[in-house]
Amino acid sequence: MKYWNKRLQKMTEYIPGEQPDNLNEFIKLNTNENPFPPSPAVLDALQKACNGDLRRYPNPNAQMVRELFAKKNSIAADNVFVANGSDEIFTLLFRGFIEPDGIAAFPYPSYALYYTMAEANGIAYDKITLDDNFDIPFDEFLKKKYNLVIIANPNNPTGKGVPIDQIKKFCSKFIGLLVVDEAYVDFYNETALPLIKEFDNIVITRSFSKSYSLAGLRVGLAIAQKDIIHGFIKLKDSYNVDRIAQAGAYAALLDDKGFKYSISMVRNNKEYLEESLEELGFQNVPSKANFVFTKHPNIDSKTIYEKLKENKILVRYFAGPIQSEYIRITVGTMMEIKKLIKVLSEIIPD
Amino acid sequence: MKYWNKRLQKMTEYIPGEQPDNLNEFIKLNTNENPFPPSPAVLDALQKACNGDLRRYPNPNAQMVRELFAKKNSIAADNVFVANGSDEIFTLLFRGFIEPDGIAAFPYPSYALYYTMAEANGIAYDKITLDDNFDIPFDEFLKKKYNLVIIANPNNPTGKGVPIDQIKKFCSKFIGLLVVDEAYVDFYNETALPLIKEFDNIVITRSFSKSYSLAGLRVGLAIAQKDIIHGFIKLKDSYNVDRIAQAGAYAALLDDKGFKYSISMVRNNKEYLEESLEELGFQNVPSKANFVFTKHPNIDSKTIYEKLKENKILVRYFAGPIQSEYIRITVGTMMEIKKLIKVLSEIIPD
Repeated sequence: MKYWNKRLQKMTEYIPGEQPDNLNEFIKLNTNENPFPPSPAVLDALQKACNGDLRRYPNPNAQMVRELFAKKNSIAADNVFVANGSDEIFTLLFRGFIEPDGIAAFPYPSYALYYTMAEANGIAYDKITLDDNFDIPFDEFLKKKYNLVIIANPNNPTGKGVPIDQIKKFCSKFIGLLVVDEAYVDFYNETALPLIKEFDNIVITRSFSKSYSLAGLRVGLAIAQKDIIHGFIKLKDSYNVDRIAQAGAYAALLDDKGFKYSISMVRNNKEYLEESLEELGFQNVPSKANFVFTKHPNIDSKTIYEKLKENKILVRYFAGPIQSEYIRITVGTMMEIKKLIKVLSEIIPD
Repeated sequence: MKYWNKRLQKMTEYIPGEQPDNLNEFIKLNTNENPFPPSPAVLDALQKACNGDLRRYPNPNAQMVRELFAKKNSIAADNVFVANGSDEIFTLLFRGFIEPDGIAAFPYPSYALYYTMAEANGIAYDKITLDDNFDIPFDEFLKKKYNLVIIANPNNPTGKGVPIDQIKKFCSKFIGLLVVDEAYVDFYNETALPLIKEFDNIVITRSFSKSYSLAGLRVGLAIAQKDIIHGFIKLKDSYNVDRIAQAGAYAALLDDKGFKYSISMVRNNKEYLEESLEELGFQNVPSKANFVFTKHPNIDSKTIYEKLKENKILVRYFAGPIQSEYIRITVGTMMEIKKLIKVLSEIIPD
């Protein structure tokens, strides 16, 4: 670590969900990917983008994607930033929208990447523990002068959603920048997006990884007032989103029919997963996302995780307080869910 | 700029080369893209990667690309980092490999992105002016205790190359980290890559944008000793290179025949461009890259740039000392070069 600076030496390494080399032998319900492929229209547009124009740099701001998303949401293209996955948005937030001696705050448990990225950028932060119902104790976030708060809505790994009027109320009192990570919003259907017209201190982030089945493509969006979006564009790498990813995101936004079909399939399967888990005695947290956070009274979660893995089924187990009592299971195809439930029924003690 | 931190407010915005909306009406010789499309084998591999697997996250470290590049260069996969364009490598360097109060140094003129990215990350730097032959005055870089030095070899915008023994000599004396940006190295054929076995303070960067005709795909590489590469991987976003880009880079590394063909075509056209410019009285800087830095004794460069633009030909004009005396012309197809030379012959006063 001779040439690493102190910040890099100190930071915790983020470990994404397991991706074993022999992935195809596994049922993979650990990283909240969509179980259904991108729509044929999207795959077709992607293939067409694989042409000689790749010798040229992409549009630096993914202008066509900005414009289409803006049009669909009755906002301006200047309100939209297109990123190389929403990871890029989070890292830019820490680099450009909080002073190096500022302080951030995040709920706990939530998406661990927020904590890692704050560390990677040398930003101090507090973790505010969710209340006993896994709801966000907004008042706690007002007790200090936080400069930046990131919440996920629905939250990950709990799957719980925050009503928009609570976010609105918080925004009007909060002096810092509030980021609402809406990676799972399409499964929820309540969005804070309209609040950007009212407040200059809110940033909404979106992802094509989950509802659009494009985790492999890396496209995320930030939506906010123009001044904030201009800051993202100034700070980002010159050509952050490649030509093919831009074409895929554009096609995905166009294909409403394919999108709605995929969402309704996932919702249907989620209901089935939740009911089947309940029948086995699991205690589910009510989920607004495409995963279920759940525990069983008779067997600890780490054991469930390990036994499932022995049976070639991957779910997510998180170490740490609260989280370690649960496992997080991504909604899969019907066949995957049935296999999971069968194996679980053999694991659960009578 | 209410929520921008001071660093973001202060930084200079990087302006990439012009990309007018009506691009297809222009001959575009301003951003050093390859005039030839990616090889059929690469386009085929890209199209095949546009499949249902896109619903899944990519390999976080682009492991197959690392391994293939390592094998071809007789190094280990642990010596290779795959990035979302080499831009990502530069920003990670400033974030993780120099203390916030450290100081960097870059030649001038060189790739302006180094200066922008240092600013974006709050890193102070010196610009060391090239000597009268546009060679790097290495001794000047030893006069202060610089923590990080980035040189481009061949240099951009001059096109001049540094012999590897000079880099080796510098490396052995320099106490900081030396980064050699080899974006244009395939047109040069002298690489500092073997030096990574000898020195722990050198990082080589490569790009698929130029010689591989994949500017639209965004893939760059860093090659260094394992400890440095581990730092890059720790600091980068979880999934920085998408599935399709990984597939394209892998196919490009496999297709030696297509690669060599493209390089020889570009070299051939460069010779023709250089000779044709000389015949018109231009004074070329001897170029090792796929562009020519040139000026004419009878007409100032800004006028040439503007008149070419009126004729729908884009070349690069840079404001600032030294640079503004020249224009930079990317090597195009034979037809593009012939059109350029015809227009130039009409612009040049007798």
